[in-house]
Amino acid sequence: MKIRIGIVTISDRASEGIYDDRSGPAIREVLSEYLLSEWEPVARLIPDDRALIEDTLCTLADEERCSLIVTTGGTGPALRDVTPEATAAVCDKLLPGFGELMRTISLQYVPTAILSRQTAGIRGRCLLINLPGKPRAIRQCLDAVFPAVPYCIDLIGGPALECNAEHVKVFRPGAG
Amino acid sequence: MKIRIGIVTISDRASEGIYDDRSGPAIREVLSEYLLSEWEPVARLIPDDRALIEDTLCTLADEERCSLIVTTGGTGPALRDVTPEATAAVCDKLLPGFGELMRTISLQYVPTAILSRQTAGIRGRCLLINLPGKPRAIRQCLDAVFPAVPYCIDLIGGPALECNAEHVKVFRPGAG
Amino acid sequence: MKIRIGIVTISDRASEGIYDDRSGPAIREVLSEYLLSEWEPVARLIPDDRALIEDTLCTLADEERCSLIVTTGGTGPALRDVTPEATAAVCDKLLPGFGELMRTISLQYVPTAILSRQTAGIRGRCLLINLPGKPRAIRQCLDAVFPAVPYCIDLIGGPALECNAEHVKVFRPGAG
Repeated sequence: MKIRIGIVTISDRASEGIYDDRSGPAIREVLSEYLLSEWEPVARLIPDDRALIEDTLCTLADEERCSLIVTTGGTGPALRDVTPEATAAVCDKLLPGFGELMRTISLQYVPTAILSRQTAGIRGRCLLINLPGKPRAIRQCLDAVFPAVPYCIDLIGGPALECNAEHVKVFRPGAG
Repeated sequence: MKIRIGIVTISDRASEGIYDDRSGPAIREVLSEYLLSEWEPVARLIPDDRALIEDTLCTLADEERCSLIVTTGGTGPALRDVTPEATAAVCDKLLPGFGELMRTISLQYVPTAILSRQTAGIRGRCLLINLPGKPRAIRQCLDAVFPAVPYCIDLIGGPALECNAEHVKVFRPGAG
Repeated sequence: MKIRIGIVTISDRASEGIYDDRSGPAIREVLSEYLLSEWEPVARLIPDDRALIEDTLCTLADEERCSLIVTTGGTGPALRDVTPEATAAVCDKLLPGFGELMRTISLQYVPTAILSRQTAGIRGRCLLINLPGKPRAIRQCLDAVFPAVPYCIDLIGGPALECNAEHVKVFRPGAG
């Protein structure tokens, strides 16, 4: 059975068609470089509505059987930015180290990285990660945190993700 | 209309007159160096009382129309240190990156920086930031986080802060 | 009166005798190197059961009069890992800087450090700190955070910990 990965673009304007969603495809491109395991994306494009975000994340984790969900957008300080709150609300436990590392990495590029409220957490056997909205920042953040993702999914009882070592140096403690 | 900035010194002893408040004036001095926009401070000196801190922050944000509130004091581990809890209680959303960066910067100077529980957040159109108590640490922390402050206030619908680039390198993504 | 320090190993398998607890003794060994003050460990070995962890932490803080409690184990993303939640539940206030610094340090060794959800906090006059499970990581984390521990315990009204400067560089602001 193919590994399923949710890719959720959260943006009022992209979901209204005011501009194209370039963030969801950027995530898909990066993951395609990383992953050797067969996988399929489960993509969603939704507005910055907290109830809808929570509902989408739950559906992808519980019914669509995604082992990993990555979101893009809605992590800033503006009134409509509610992705971290929606993520926290549906997670059984939070993983603050993801947000800390992504902000630290982004700070090497822009001082406004501290405005990002990105988080990550676990719901059942699914790992959820908030990414920034901009394609370049998406890649920077995934490059930083993805080495820990396969082991995390192992620990929560998900499928074994095999990755391309030329693109991402996955680490599993205890593995040779 | 002048930009209004709340400066809240939170200290049992300074508020009782046991010693002078040097922290509030230190914040005012640093902000005066940074800001080219016309602004006026709205200063308060209060004890470490959680209800009073919350009430003061709400008044400054909602009635005094401050676009930014900086607090000093009350962020440590002692029984009377409740500034972060009061701040979190009145904010619509929290910005964990501010506290993370301020602790990282302070760690370059003192190992006890990890005892600081400083946070930041948004209430309506106001950004609230907890700073440390000591004047030297206040400047170190403001130097670290202020480059992101004007853009944050833009995002929440506040006034445009113009700054002196010789004193602080403000960054606005997308701005030239 | 001797300073009392709780050392709590949290592990389903070690508590069932499936393997030996090497983590608790590793903590004891590191603390013995650090501390010049007379102290005694109050050791516990318990499974990953949230109610039992909370009860154990409360007993050690309130009845056994520990000034410091260090836990090991149960901080990862797996279903049974609930040490951070149990710790947060019994603390009057949290100290996020401990977890941030421990993850930053561990990241120098393993990319999976971001999976650790370690935290720290205060209950009454007791400082509680979550450490990782592996002896080598325990020492790395204690080396990073312990310089701030004696001053923290001073601030919450605990006993003065005197340490061996050859093993740990304790810092007390304002002290000489």
